[in-house]
Amino acid sequence: MYYVGMISEKLRFLRACRSQPVDATPVWFMRQAGRYMAEYRELRKTHSILALAKTPELACEVTLQPVRALPIDAAILFADILLVLEPMGLKLRFAPGPTISNPVRTEADIKRLKVKDAAAELDCVFQAVKLIRRETEGKVGLIGFAGAPFTVASYMIEGGHSDHYKLTKAMMTDRPDLWDLLMKKVRVVTAEYLEAQVKAGAQAVQLFDSWIGVLSPDQYRRHVRPHSKWILDRLEKSGVPVISFGTDTNGFLEDFASAGGSVIGVDWRIDMDVARRRIGKKAVQGNLDPILLFSGKKALKAAVKDIIDRNGGRSGHIFNLGHGILPTTPVDTVKMVADWVHEFSRK
Amino acid sequence: MYYVGMISEKLRFLRACRSQPVDATPVWFMRQAGRYMAEYRELRKTHSILALAKTPELACEVTLQPVRALPIDAAILFADILLVLEPMGLKLRFAPGPTISNPVRTEADIKRLKVKDAAAELDCVFQAVKLIRRETEGKVGLIGFAGAPFTVASYMIEGGHSDHYKLTKAMMTDRPDLWDLLMKKVRVVTAEYLEAQVKAGAQAVQLFDSWIGVLSPDQYRRHVRPHSKWILDRLEKSGVPVISFGTDTNGFLEDFASAGGSVIGVDWRIDMDVARRRIGKKAVQGNLDPILLFSGKKALKAAVKDIIDRNGGRSGHIFNLGHGILPTTPVDTVKMVADWVHEFSRK
Repeated sequence: MYYVGMISEKLRFLRACRSQPVDATPVWFMRQAGRYMAEYRELRKTHSILALAKTPELACEVTLQPVRALPIDAAILFADILLVLEPMGLKLRFAPGPTISNPVRTEADIKRLKVKDAAAELDCVFQAVKLIRRETEGKVGLIGFAGAPFTVASYMIEGGHSDHYKLTKAMMTDRPDLWDLLMKKVRVVTAEYLEAQVKAGAQAVQLFDSWIGVLSPDQYRRHVRPHSKWILDRLEKSGVPVISFGTDTNGFLEDFASAGGSVIGVDWRIDMDVARRRIGKKAVQGNLDPILLFSGKKALKAAVKDIIDRNGGRSGHIFNLGHGILPTTPVDTVKMVADWVHEFSRK
Repeated sequence: MYYVGMISEKLRFLRACRSQPVDATPVWFMRQAGRYMAEYRELRKTHSILALAKTPELACEVTLQPVRALPIDAAILFADILLVLEPMGLKLRFAPGPTISNPVRTEADIKRLKVKDAAAELDCVFQAVKLIRRETEGKVGLIGFAGAPFTVASYMIEGGHSDHYKLTKAMMTDRPDLWDLLMKKVRVVTAEYLEAQVKAGAQAVQLFDSWIGVLSPDQYRRHVRPHSKWILDRLEKSGVPVISFGTDTNGFLEDFASAGGSVIGVDWRIDMDVARRRIGKKAVQGNLDPILLFSGKKALKAAVKDIIDRNGGRSGHIFNLGHGILPTTPVDTVKMVADWVHEFSRK
């Protein structure tokens, strides 16, 4: 991490990403722009998710909604991890879950996938990043993001939500040649997509490996880690901090953390002190159970405090949930948690 | 574990449960009686799951189907972890997933739950155990089972399948008094139910905590472990080995293992050598990804061998899947895996 010590950031989110000392622990929430906010639901009455994500002004508006409503330290671009599928040649719709009508199952399907200039087709996203950065400059950090290659490939293969990732694991296990071909295509588009977000103004990027926890340690190490590492190595040259997030990574956390990224995101299935010990010198992001946002004040406060306490005042902690905010979460509770994070961690 | 060294078993499954040396690693499969077998599907044409489970002759027949078809070392009673719900006063049907029409949400709901003599009402199960034991005697071990209190209580509260266990976690977190009241009722019925299975002839029992992995380590330690431990401590007096199984327990495996049981069951999200190290002296059961049963021979063989190799020839390994066999799994593949386990581990 060549930038440590070379760049002195003012924003506490960016400082924490680089494990620099902060006045208080920065906080943001995965899916902080979304259905739990009335302003978002209002826009969704007249616009589909894809329309919001692909119209720079609307994506900017949705990105800023939580920044206006909550005392958070970072904005995250409003987009979807599956946006890259369309320029690669897949047909995506939300019905309401993501559905791909021409999933990737054969060698021919993989060969047909477009790589060259695919990321560049998502110019609407880069325009959104530019608009948002103008609004967030000097106030909160701006995070860009993409799906990690395993999670994106699993959607491509399954064609939507999956319980057991049967087709994905079958390709991985029985046709590792095809699997590698697919992952190599996805990783190039993903890296170019993230680099373009950085060029447009993203001050950090997060790679979401939301479903990685369905894998055994062996499956992860053998079939996924090399491809994630390839992206993470390449992004190190971008100069911005990279957050590598996965759920349910307990079985291979050391391998996951050493694959790359300056910040490792963990879900709620691990104690924060254990996470810090296993992850080592890198910064850590997490890890409140999103369901606790439906709990009463007393229990929730204790859970927030427990995470701060288990971090033990170390630099390089970004407070977040262990996964995204759920649709019916009360906004006031989210606000309260953000305030508590700052209050409990204040130096 | 007062029985170690006092009881010398002939069956390799029972010997392995007690960490005694064996000629080859014993193997059985969770959900080895089920939809993937033609004989089972045939019976299901005319009988519901509950009818099969509650008719001793049919439960015996279904239990024995995999024993006839596969070179396995143990039979497991055909039943359902939710059978205890009916004698406790809940209305259960499979539609096709379990659905409880009068779920447990309030103090009054919990107080209404019947405990006294509830387990005894499941006499059909104990009769099935007697019939099965007569058939399996001296050939394979016979395992009885029950759901662990967290998993059973979560079904009681949610009323069926749940994505986020919102109501369960809410009760646990905000009304720990009610949660404890519920868990104390469930644990008594569960212990009595298992004790009666042992009395009827079960030679080992397994406690299934299938959904425990949705919890944070703190939630597990605070709200679940004391109740699981209560059952496991009590069952130690039964004289038969107890298998304590949970999926996704990586975040609190040491706490899970020390709660009780002479065998700890793990899913595929952990390397077997790591599981053995973290679990310590107890026997370990697991841990092939059930999805790999859809894989080609070469990859599957390597995965089976990897688990045997990572066990490193230690006593006290029972080979199993990390979770249940999936409905469309090829029977021949299951047979092949059982053969490989014996072949690769033969002393």
